[in-house]
This record gives sequence, C-alpha cells and structure tokens, in this order.
Amino acid sequence: MTREDIADWFRDLQDDICQNLEQGDGVGKFHQDLWERTEGGGGRTRIIQGAHIEKGGVNFSAVHGPLPEKIRNALKLDSGAFFATGVSIVLHPKNPWVPIIHMNVRYFEMSDGKWWFGGGIDLTPHYVNEDEARHFHGVLKTVCDQHHASYYPEFKQWADDYFYVKHRKETRGIGGIFFDRLSAQDGFTKEQRFAFVQSVGKAFAPIYLRFLEDNKNRAYEPQHKKWQLLRRGRYVEFNLVWDKGTKFGLDTDGRIESILMSLPPEVNWDYNVQVADGSSEAHTLSLLKKGINWA
Amino acid sequence: MTREDIADWFRDLQDDICQNLEQGDGVGKFHQDLWERTEGGGGRTRIIQGAHIEKGGVNFSAVHGPLPEKIRNALKLDSGAFFATGVSIVLHPKNPWVPIIHMNVRYFEMSDGKWWFGGGIDLTPHYVNEDEARHFHGVLKTVCDQHHASYYPEFKQWADDYFYVKHRKETRGIGGIFFDRLSAQDGFTKEQRFAFVQSVGKAFAPIYLRFLEDNKNRAYEPQHKKWQLLRRGRYVEFNLVWDKGTKFGLDTDGRIESILMSLPPEVNWDYNVQVADGSSEAHTLSLLKKGINWA
Repeated sequence: MTREDIADWFRDLQDDICQNLEQGDGVGKFHQDLWERTEGGGGRTRIIQGAHIEKGGVNFSAVHGPLPEKIRNALKLDSGAFFATGVSIVLHPKNPWVPIIHMNVRYFEMSDGKWWFGGGIDLTPHYVNEDEARHFHGVLKTVCDQHHASYYPEFKQWADDYFYVKHRKETRGIGGIFFDRLSAQDGFTKEQRFAFVQSVGKAFAPIYLRFLEDNKNRAYEPQHKKWQLLRRGRYVEFNLVWDKGTKFGLDTDGRIESILMSLPPEVNWDYNVQVADGSSEAHTLSLLKKGINWA
Repeated sequence: MTREDIADWFRDLQDDICQNLEQGDGVGKFHQDLWERTEGGGGRTRIIQGAHIEKGGVNFSAVHGPLPEKIRNALKLDSGAFFATGVSIVLHPKNPWVPIIHMNVRYFEMSDGKWWFGGGIDLTPHYVNEDEARHFHGVLKTVCDQHHASYYPEFKQWADDYFYVKHRKETRGIGGIFFDRLSAQDGFTKEQRFAFVQSVGKAFAPIYLRFLEDNKNRAYEPQHKKWQLLRRGRYVEFNLVWDKGTKFGLDTDGRIESILMSLPPEVNWDYNVQVADGSSEAHTLSLLKKGINWA
C-alpha cells in the first residue's frame, strides 16, 4: 500500500461524498476549484450552496515537499520531506433543526519512514436532539468497535477534549470521535489503521443524510433561525481561536479559501445572550459539556 | 498623579464618549453592566444598539491583583502585583458608508514600580473614502505632533504592522496609530505620557461623530450592505486570530462578553469572493496595505 493508494482512496471518497450530498440536497451542485502548491502537490476544493446545505465544503488535498519549520516544531519532527493527504468536510445547513457536521480523515508520512493517520467526525446541533445524539454516537461506536474495543472510548474522550470552546466553557457540539498519530503502536499494521480510517470515511454520508432527510423540511420560527446564527458564532470562535488545523493552515500559508470554507455563510453575535430557564435553548446549553455517555 | 487619578480620568472619558455617541446616534442608549473580578477590581461594560450604531461597546476597567502567569510570560515581567486600567471601544455602524472604529487607551503598573501607557485608534472603512482617510490621519498627526515629533511616524507604522490580517495579506483598514510600553524612556515624564494618552482619548468622539454625521443617512444598495457584512468577516478574522488583546483576554479568563463585544452583530462569509476590476470594492482592497502616507 503506497501513499498514492491512500491518496487515491481519499480522492474517491471525496467523489462519493459529493455525489451523496448533491442527492441529499436535491438542488445544489458542487463547484470545484483545483489548486496547486508551489512546493508540491495541490487539491480539489469543492463548495456547495444548495437548497438545504446553505454552505458546505468537501476538500481533498495531497501535498508534499520539504517540511515547513512551523510544522516541524509543532509536530516535533526531524527535518526532511513530508507527504500529507486527506479529506476535510464542514457542512452548514439552512434549517436550524439540521446539525452542522465536520469530518476529517488524513494520512501523513515523512521521508524517514514515519507515518500516521488522523481524523475525526463531530456533530454540532443548533438544538440538541437527544435521539439523534445517541444515534450518532451509536454509529461511531459500531464503526470503532469493528476495529478495536479501545477506539471508541478513547477517541470519544479525545473529541470531548478537542472540540472544546475553552473561553465559553462549553463543547462545540455533542462531540464524536477524534484521533491522531495512529501508527504502528500496539502491534497495529498500516493496513489495519487505514481500514479503520476508511470505515470512518464511509460512515459520513449515511450519518449526515439521515439527519438532513429527517429535518430539512421541518418548520421553524424566526427565533430558531436567530439561535442558529448565534450558535454559528460559537463555531467561528472555535475554528479561529482554538482549532489546531485552522491555525496550522493560516500559519503555514495554506490556501486560505479552502481552510476558511469552514466558516458559516451568515453569523450573528449579540451581546450577552441569555436563554430562558426551561427553554430548548437552555436545554441545548446544558448538554454542551464533556463526558456525556451518548452511546 | 496616582493610578487612581488615571483610572478616574479614564472613567470620565468613558462617560464623555458615551454621552457624545448617544447624541450622535440620536436614538440608542448605552446599557451598562458592572462586573467584578474575583482577584481584584472590575469594570463598566457599556453596549449601544442604536439607530446608526448597530452595535457598539465602550468599556472601562480597572483591575489589580497578583500578575497571572500567562501575562508575566507574555510581557516578560517579574512576578508581583499588577494594576491595569483603560478604555476600549469598538463601533459597528449600520450604514456601510460609515467606517468601523476602534480605540484603546490603557495604563499598566507593577508593584516593583514599572509603569507604562499603551493604546491606539484605527479606522476600518467598508469602502475607503480617501478624503476621510486623509482627514483621519491628519487629526491623529496633529494630536501626536503636539506631544512629540517622533510620535506620529512611529505610531502610524506600528498600527500598519499591528492591524494586519496576515493570512489575507491585507491591513484591517486604513490603520491609524498604535503604541505600547510608553514609559520614562528618552526623558519623558509620566505626566507627559499621560497628557498624550489623554489627547488621544479626547480626539476619539469628534473624529467618529464627523464620519457618522456625514454618512449615516447616505443611501446604499443591497450590494453595499453585502460588502459590509463580508468586510466584517475580516474584522472577526483579525480579532480572533491575530489581536493580542483579545487572545490575552481569552487566555486569562477575562470577562468574555466584554472582550467579544468587538464582534459585529451580523457577518457573512462567502467562498472565494471576487471583486470586479475597477469597482469601488476593488479600489478599497487596493488601499488595504501598509505604508500609505495619508497624513
């Protein structure tokens, strides 16, 4: 299994997910921008602005070249050439009852032979629907359990810790799974690690299409839309202040429009928003914390 | 001149600016929140949502206590007790022809006797009006020149460097002045440094009221409003990714709603926005760079 095999699989995954999302949206089509990186490699950025997916990005990239110093320091690596490939997705739905979703699957290798996989999926409902939260974590647990019993508990906690808006003391959403530096530790083979990442990638479209299908035509009031715009503000705060992937891209002169496709199309910030006791907004806030056992 | 004298002057400045802005807006009134800091001190956060100032914050604070470790490291100080006081302002106007403005004036001292002033004013027009840009820098130059001939050139360049959205390779707006650690260097007295900071503070209201008065009733089209919402996105990107004051506040458990009052009420992010050659949007972008001699 070469790095090209892995990149090819990710490229096909992008195709497959885009096709599924176009079907789910029913109207929107992905617009593609091909880009190249001066130092080596490039990507396919695909953006949809549809009837139900208000703004969504499904990006593939495969880049290589001398390891930038900032990455070398951040990842504590020796100098050398690197190769990195992956698929990154963020979808902002129009309907506030449909959750925001994010997925990333990636592979990294160094010229000295080091390699690892990373990634994750997390869900950010504007209003937490507990049945959907349980379903989401249930699917992720099933995917993880097929590969190793330690995966779900470990990667679920990792997501709780990673997708945390520290200055708001709340999680970004209901979490999911997050993992990084999955290599040959504990006797895993590269094939086994890749098989797991493939399962995560393949789980994405069915998970999201279900949430989209169940909620995309559900009626909502202006106050629900308003709450969605405010929650999108928290999404921006997480991505610009805390998300390591975003910081990394901005620090290392990545393609800005591909990195920031994750930002929502329309966002509000009001001063000192308060929610009424017993409201569905208050209920949602009460569930934006670490350590909830959804699965 | 004690630190309480300085805090009192800043408190009065907040009162004076709020009164002026209420008159300029004609409708909106400031809402005040008093807050206290567990370790010592507190502040008065004042927010206006008016007819012409869509969202504005004018904050005063005076805080003290043991120096938090993060600040000690960032400012390269010895441990001890600190005192900090200042006024911070960000105004987001409704009309896209009115610029966004920011001002900060502040005083810091340590228990070992170290003290300094810092601050600045910078202007972020959604559309750069060159007459207004020249007027703005002209006023700042006059204010600076009354105190020292080196101030304007030095602090203007500092603002160009500071208010820079590095990942977009553009300045936040047309700059202004920025200064920090103004202490007893070069024979300045504390009274002289404070007198300069007072002049900056007093310059704020007349500067902004003129821009507000001249433009608040000017007609605009939906595409101008759209551009304003997109430019506000860049403002958010600067504040959350690059602004040291914001990072500091978030890192050190400051009062979040007071820190993030700087974020605009309504913001858009579109994918890969392109402007037409020769358009006023393109003209504005061409002026968002360092080193323009406006004064």
